[in-house]
Amino acid sequence: MNDNAFQDFYDEDTSHCYGCGSLNEHGLQIKTHWDGDETVTVYTPRPYHMAIPGYVYGGLIASLIDCHGTGTAAAAAYRESGREMGTLPSFRFVTASLHVDYLKPTPLGQPLTVRGRVKEIKGRKVIVEAALYVNGVKTAKGEVVAVEMPSSFA
Amino acid sequence: MNDNAFQDFYDEDTSHCYGCGSLNEHGLQIKTHWDGDETVTVYTPRPYHMAIPGYVYGGLIASLIDCHGTGTAAAAAYRESGREMGTLPSFRFVTASLHVDYLKPTPLGQPLTVRGRVKEIKGRKVIVEAALYVNGVKTAKGEVVAVEMPSSFA
Repeated sequence: MNDNAFQDFYDEDTSHCYGCGSLNEHGLQIKTHWDGDETVTVYTPRPYHMAIPGYVYGGLIASLIDCHGTGTAAAAAYRESGREMGTLPSFRFVTASLHVDYLKPTPLGQPLTVRGRVKEIKGRKVIVEAALYVNGVKTAKGEVVAVEMPSSFA
Repeated sequence: MNDNAFQDFYDEDTSHCYGCGSLNEHGLQIKTHWDGDETVTVYTPRPYHMAIPGYVYGGLIASLIDCHGTGTAAAAAYRESGREMGTLPSFRFVTASLHVDYLKPTPLGQPLTVRGRVKEIKGRKVIVEAALYVNGVKTAKGEVVAVEMPSSFA
């Protein structure tokens, strides 16, 4: 793994996201890295990120998969173009659609690991498949359709 | 609309959810009501619920649709069985799958309205369609497959 997370290369303008922005002091500030052809995010929920006592809130899982997906899309776009992350012009993606299947309850109190893989990369669109694990058990899986952010957006 | 929101009828055990639990002091505490055959949740994001400055974080939108869906499922199960909400035994649902399509950027700083409708109710499963509006403009739509919570879960 590289020491710098994908999110550490985001521009200042795009570092305020509640899920993955390093400048959002209230946010989750997730960090994602390559692990071979997979991407990995590890996040430990806060005690109040619960659905019912003892189990993780599904909306948090959706949020982790969402930002893991857009981060993976950016990193994959750099890889595809043979460029190092952080070089200009930046690749930055937004979510067009998000799907999550909750396979079983996710226990609260331990680190969650999201592992992602690029399913398709075509033009301005990247589709990322992701799965979420706790203690090695897959408890959710999802898919993010990410599209390159229009320059007018940021 | 009834004065009491669906979430006001949840048992103490199921009132800690980060998205909709009235006892989660850190959470969103959404409130959902019937409006004819539709269900309505109005929520104003916090200033830090941003994707990029000026726009709402997609994970928050997913969270709103998620808890709007499970709340609608519970209310629909009561209606289907001809019972008033709050009567025992309780109907309480968890999310089996969540899908969100982000149609356009959602501006931050104004109330968001989620409107839902039961697409299917069959046995222990309720499928809820939802759309999210800001100033009358639909910016996202989604679908929640909710299943009745196993009694072992809570």
